[in-house]
Amino acid sequence: MRYLGEREIEDIAVGASLLGTGGGGDPHIGKLMALQAIEEQGPVQLLEVDELPDDALIVPIGMMGAPTVLFEKAPGEHEATNAFSMMEDYLGEKVYATMPIEIGGVNSLLPVAVAARLGLPVVNVDGMGRAFPELQMVTFYLDGISASPLILADERGNTSVMNTVDNHWAERLARSATIQMGGSATVAQYPMHGKDVRRSGIAGSLGLAEDIGKAIREAKQNNQNPVDEVILRSGGIKLFEGKVTDISRRTVTGFARGTATIEGINADRSHTLKLHFQNEFLLAEKNDAPVCITPDLICTLDADTGTPITTEGLRYGVRCAVIGIPCHEKWRTNKGLETCGPGYFGYGMDYMPLETPAAKGDKTV
Amino acid sequence: MRYLGEREIEDIAVGASLLGTGGGGDPHIGKLMALQAIEEQGPVQLLEVDELPDDALIVPIGMMGAPTVLFEKAPGEHEATNAFSMMEDYLGEKVYATMPIEIGGVNSLLPVAVAARLGLPVVNVDGMGRAFPELQMVTFYLDGISASPLILADERGNTSVMNTVDNHWAERLARSATIQMGGSATVAQYPMHGKDVRRSGIAGSLGLAEDIGKAIREAKQNNQNPVDEVILRSGGIKLFEGKVTDISRRTVTGFARGTATIEGINADRSHTLKLHFQNEFLLAEKNDAPVCITPDLICTLDADTGTPITTEGLRYGVRCAVIGIPCHEKWRTNKGLETCGPGYFGYGMDYMPLETPAAKGDKTV
Repeated sequence: MRYLGEREIEDIAVGASLLGTGGGGDPHIGKLMALQAIEEQGPVQLLEVDELPDDALIVPIGMMGAPTVLFEKAPGEHEATNAFSMMEDYLGEKVYATMPIEIGGVNSLLPVAVAARLGLPVVNVDGMGRAFPELQMVTFYLDGISASPLILADERGNTSVMNTVDNHWAERLARSATIQMGGSATVAQYPMHGKDVRRSGIAGSLGLAEDIGKAIREAKQNNQNPVDEVILRSGGIKLFEGKVTDISRRTVTGFARGTATIEGINADRSHTLKLHFQNEFLLAEKNDAPVCITPDLICTLDADTGTPITTEGLRYGVRCAVIGIPCHEKWRTNKGLETCGPGYFGYGMDYMPLETPAAKGDKTV
Repeated sequence: MRYLGEREIEDIAVGASLLGTGGGGDPHIGKLMALQAIEEQGPVQLLEVDELPDDALIVPIGMMGAPTVLFEKAPGEHEATNAFSMMEDYLGEKVYATMPIEIGGVNSLLPVAVAARLGLPVVNVDGMGRAFPELQMVTFYLDGISASPLILADERGNTSVMNTVDNHWAERLARSATIQMGGSATVAQYPMHGKDVRRSGIAGSLGLAEDIGKAIREAKQNNQNPVDEVILRSGGIKLFEGKVTDISRRTVTGFARGTATIEGINADRSHTLKLHFQNEFLLAEKNDAPVCITPDLICTLDADTGTPITTEGLRYGVRCAVIGIPCHEKWRTNKGLETCGPGYFGYGMDYMPLETPAAKGDKTV
């Protein structure tokens, strides 16, 4: 157990933005909420999964909706505390701690803000090890844990407690309610006991986000190359370096979808990388050959400062580095690939692990 | 207090189909469910509003969705009993009785079936005195009673407990969930205490439906004109008699919308009546001049047998009588007309009470 203060939150925000693979909502909002909450309430306890009692109730909290909307509608802590008290009433148990459902963007730090407000610990774990756009896309689903009861709350005061027959129905009903609620809503879901968090969660992801953020911060201070430092900490691979030359995006059925085209510079001169996203980056093609495919992580950073760039931050002329990070091994199982592989997202190709040499796209050079 | 048996249910089904003004779902399904339930469980107690204890919990139950879908997806009692037990858990009170939310079609008799299954009484009251397509369109809304907590349940086992800031939000969120659930869902809403049912409900509507059904049945037995008998019992006005020559309908955003054109016969020869519907008949125009406008009731009957015809039953060549029935006085208030008047449904005209001579359309003859 240790405490998260201002420095840790700043670092987590940067690392979580990277691990959010372009999605998960603007981390800046989550950071501001968390910083304000700890300024008023003091540092937040960070528990490791090994420290959780078997029967302690852990409730992940986050935002659902398109990042482009989240950017304009700051998530409210009031909805989150409301959702927690409804969850406690419904289950007849006290919430022992909260945790991020995904490590990406706003959803990594919203639980920290809520934890500070409610005097709860937050657990160093998440259900993705990255960010994904649908709520069944968590290791808990792979391990047979139900998303229900799921509680949605909006900023007006509307709430809905859903109990669904499976997690795909949870996604379907919660998504449609989120769209009605204006494109984003606060969601408390996958209430679990400590033993389930331990067996099913991706342990240490808040800590990893912090490590990555710290590496970027220190690289800047020490005039080191931040991209190299991120690769070192995350176990990633450098995929590309270039300038954004084209970007198209639209918000449909609650998702921000689009593509970005990056023309290579330096070693990648005369090559082109195309990034496809649906809230998150899901497919990177170098000269039309896939080099990194979901569920592996595709991350973009400002080539000079190492600052992670979200899909909303990708603009014409931005000079960026693109790195790939191997996903958690649970995503490479059959059920993992069915849930989050390229086929699910409508890309007509088989998954290839990032580390496979053929995936590097150099065969087309 | 009296009991509803087979004969009463048969009569209610016919009268409720008429008062459903073409909508509310196929009454045949509700009748079959109610008949089967009382065959197995015995007759159902019918309580008058005066017999309700002030603090008794009354929960209306019904189906939400497009009648064209209800026709193919029979509503399940299992969902209804499930919704009731959730409501009891949520409110911490036992359900004392149920009631129809609207007197139209399946929603008049579904509560009778549920009452039989659960051994509860049903109350001789509803919230519309007719049928309407949206859930805020009830006298309870006019009187400031909340639709929340609202419980939706589908046939798969998905449930949602909604608490919304107002009844328009209840409609919006429940409607979108209903569409996701396949176009129809069981809904328990507007939980009320006895004193609120008494001050706000339209008392005696199940009994009125029964009277109308009985009048049609007896007219047939006695070779009387059933249309005249219906007019006598309901306080209605005969608007038109003719043959359906054109009908168009489509199911959009969960509603069955369309228009029917009727060419006059007998006294109405060489005149034309056009009926506009959105689940229910909402506007009748004779020779392009309005003769009956929502919230007044527009009802179609088979001209020979007096059998009410729903919007789904309107087919080319059907010979029918169209009658208008004055709505309950609560609908003629400002808030009533805002809620259910022609403007709300997108008809660019002012409401005119059915009884106004100018509304008869004869000025254009």
